[in-house]
Amino acid sequence: MDCFFNPRGIAVIGASDNQHKGGYHLFRNIIQSYRGPVYPVNPRLGEIMGRECYPDVRSIPHDFDLAVFFVPAGNLPRVIEDCAAKGVRGIIIESAGFAEVGQEGRNLQETSVALARRHGIRLWGPNCMGLLDAHRGHVFSFMYTDAWKRLMRPGDVSMIVQSGMLSAGFLMMILERGLLDISKMCSIGNKCDIHETELLAHLVDDPTTAVIGMYVESIVEPRRFMELVAGTNKPVVVLKGGRSPKGARAAMSHTASLASNHAIVRAALRQANAVEVTDVNELMDVLRGFSKSGRCRFSDGTGAAVITFSGGGGIVTIDLLEEAGVPLAELGSQTLAALGEVYPPWMSPSNPADIWPAIEHSGPRKVYETALKAVMEDPAVDSLVMHLFTSMIDGSMFAELARLKEELGKPVVAWLAGVGDTFRTLRSELEDLGIPTFDEMQRCVSVLAAIRRHARDSTHKQPRTGRQG
Amino acid sequence: MDCFFNPRGIAVIGASDNQHKGGYHLFRNIIQSYRGPVYPVNPRLGEIMGRECYPDVRSIPHDFDLAVFFVPAGNLPRVIEDCAAKGVRGIIIESAGFAEVGQEGRNLQETSVALARRHGIRLWGPNCMGLLDAHRGHVFSFMYTDAWKRLMRPGDVSMIVQSGMLSAGFLMMILERGLLDISKMCSIGNKCDIHETELLAHLVDDPTTAVIGMYVESIVEPRRFMELVAGTNKPVVVLKGGRSPKGARAAMSHTASLASNHAIVRAALRQANAVEVTDVNELMDVLRGFSKSGRCRFSDGTGAAVITFSGGGGIVTIDLLEEAGVPLAELGSQTLAALGEVYPPWMSPSNPADIWPAIEHSGPRKVYETALKAVMEDPAVDSLVMHLFTSMIDGSMFAELARLKEELGKPVVAWLAGVGDTFRTLRSELEDLGIPTFDEMQRCVSVLAAIRRHARDSTHKQPRTGRQG
Repeated sequence: MDCFFNPRGIAVIGASDNQHKGGYHLFRNIIQSYRGPVYPVNPRLGEIMGRECYPDVRSIPHDFDLAVFFVPAGNLPRVIEDCAAKGVRGIIIESAGFAEVGQEGRNLQETSVALARRHGIRLWGPNCMGLLDAHRGHVFSFMYTDAWKRLMRPGDVSMIVQSGMLSAGFLMMILERGLLDISKMCSIGNKCDIHETELLAHLVDDPTTAVIGMYVESIVEPRRFMELVAGTNKPVVVLKGGRSPKGARAAMSHTASLASNHAIVRAALRQANAVEVTDVNELMDVLRGFSKSGRCRFSDGTGAAVITFSGGGGIVTIDLLEEAGVPLAELGSQTLAALGEVYPPWMSPSNPADIWPAIEHSGPRKVYETALKAVMEDPAVDSLVMHLFTSMIDGSMFAELARLKEELGKPVVAWLAGVGDTFRTLRSELEDLGIPTFDEMQRCVSVLAAIRRHARDSTHKQPRTGRQG
Repeated sequence: MDCFFNPRGIAVIGASDNQHKGGYHLFRNIIQSYRGPVYPVNPRLGEIMGRECYPDVRSIPHDFDLAVFFVPAGNLPRVIEDCAAKGVRGIIIESAGFAEVGQEGRNLQETSVALARRHGIRLWGPNCMGLLDAHRGHVFSFMYTDAWKRLMRPGDVSMIVQSGMLSAGFLMMILERGLLDISKMCSIGNKCDIHETELLAHLVDDPTTAVIGMYVESIVEPRRFMELVAGTNKPVVVLKGGRSPKGARAAMSHTASLASNHAIVRAALRQANAVEVTDVNELMDVLRGFSKSGRCRFSDGTGAAVITFSGGGGIVTIDLLEEAGVPLAELGSQTLAALGEVYPPWMSPSNPADIWPAIEHSGPRKVYETALKAVMEDPAVDSLVMHLFTSMIDGSMFAELARLKEELGKPVVAWLAGVGDTFRTLRSELEDLGIPTFDEMQRCVSVLAAIRRHARDSTHKQPRTGRQG
């Protein structure tokens, strides 16, 4: 994989000086993001952006190990031969027009794979948007925006996607909203050679990746895939395209993927402790949840606690929790007594803890700090959902909560209501404290359910040292 | 109901000059929003905000028909007697401390209801936040913000809620995001007398209400409720709190509501053609969907069409559509031929119509305009989901679509990707054209499914004039 993630020189076949063409953006993104030598290849041009341009790969008078292919599909076999002659190790094929367009394209793709194998060249794609690597700063993608310069911050979330949108425009939108810091973003398209299972193995061992997300339309080597998911403590979040019969048919014309019966895939994912999601925003939010939350142990508690400023909001949340399979903790007498200290006399504390009357009585800081500490320290509580309103809080009210979360390993998620810059600032502060923060209760609950289940299953999966024998 | 929605004078019992108290905000909101006479009642003050203050209701030397009660619960029976002496027709009780706090409060509530009935006085609440009426400009609520002055725009969505948050802070947040224009917002709390079914009957006949939303923890007079829902063509969207056993228990201590077995409620709602949702943001989004979309007829088509700029996005959407019970239309040969005119030669059009390669080939305006027209005019298509990216479009590209939507009555929803002000501007432009616009595919699909099902069931429910034998 090194030739893709850490290449020694890159040839860009189809580099262009016409900014309406993908080949312009591809070349520009690579020279602006990659520090090693880059060689444009285009028989019609003498130079591009001040760099000498070569008519073909063989004419490049230097050694390099990666080529990026962005010319019409039919040229691929010839380019593979040229690359073999130059000792190239890998080719990222971003052009479309292969197996996804029918039999002729399928033949071309198969011929190319066979040819590349003979020469020991690995193929990435075709029909994809290449890869981004935020730690190395690489953008090997023809995406038409340079927003990545401003938005791509190194983080611990890596993705493998069969969708250009997810690795380009949509990703930039998510990054702009400040919702994700990424490590590697791999767009694999038709995955004629390099596929999700091989990349998953790579990411499981990748030290800059802690959370793995996927949009895939089929799974190659499903047994190995499930073993990899089951064998790692890194959460793997999967959005499977083509779950429905018509979705599966569309996947065939999108990336020539043969989607399997989804009931079987779902059961296998569940068995392997993967987290399944059904929408792209949900995928991004669940990845953010795992990333911000950090590694959570699973305590011996029996369920979640809910702290809310709204009786109605508390009820909606526990309905959603129960529907997501998260039991509600029975709070202990010590916890109820501590809550009673800040509650008005007429109100009995319970779970959900509706602290609005207490806030009217004793002010938000005292009530939140008291309630959060009491609930987190309750041995029956294994996780927490808290509801916050921007106008009632500031970030400093949650320092002790963050310490307790760290010490006890209990996951905490927040539903934050409010608007504008204050919302964004508070969300950042909370997420820096390890508390993923959302503006929809449903998302809050589905993220907590995912984190809680993953923590539990991971804990059970590991040998419990000190208890054996 | 007129004494609540269109009162002739209001006494505010518990008006305060201390801005840390609800009674301050209640009085301030009423005098700043209601044009008739307002009389503050507080035995400890001579005047409040320049208005003469009365020690009790009997001392007010004027006639008026509404009182708003915001003093400790135990005072209610005495206040009812005073109100009866003054000829008051209705009391909005915003204080808590009644049936929701246990047997003593329950007794107090029941005594008060019996007393009011004897005097022909209607009670609203207790334990609620009163009501807002955007057309009349009324804010009879103790909410602590005056953001309503800026945000409350008259629209056609009315709500009945058993949650203060939904009628105050959360509502303001939704209004600030520019997502909803409202008619009446009724917060009913413990609904000891006036309840959701009576208000629903009022809203069904209300000329400024076209869409009705609810958050309720129980349904009083369920048979009449279901008949009202089934008998109106106004969509009724219901978020039921207390669906789960623990949620039902929490509803008891929130608004003293006895939640029924939810499987039965769900079936009855479905039968009556109500739309059920499970989260507060979803409630607001579905209401917005119905409101912006306007009245849709149901055509004789067989399913939805999807137009997307992303193969992956199209697949995710059709998986979601199929899971939501919305079939995908088989596009006719004329439609496929029209799409073929703008598609590159190597690509065969289908549903979902992935127009990205066509856009690269012919530019976004030509492709969107061609594709939208062809698909909308296809008799097999009864509704449309379109995916848009801010950087590819401007509002003028959708004028013909809006005309076709109006003419054919086929609902259209948009998933808009992108960021910042452009996103907000385009969303407004699209919604002004009758196209509800969302930033999550899942929400797009659930709104379309709701609109489509409601249109179908409403169409079937009406006698089809001209076809009768």
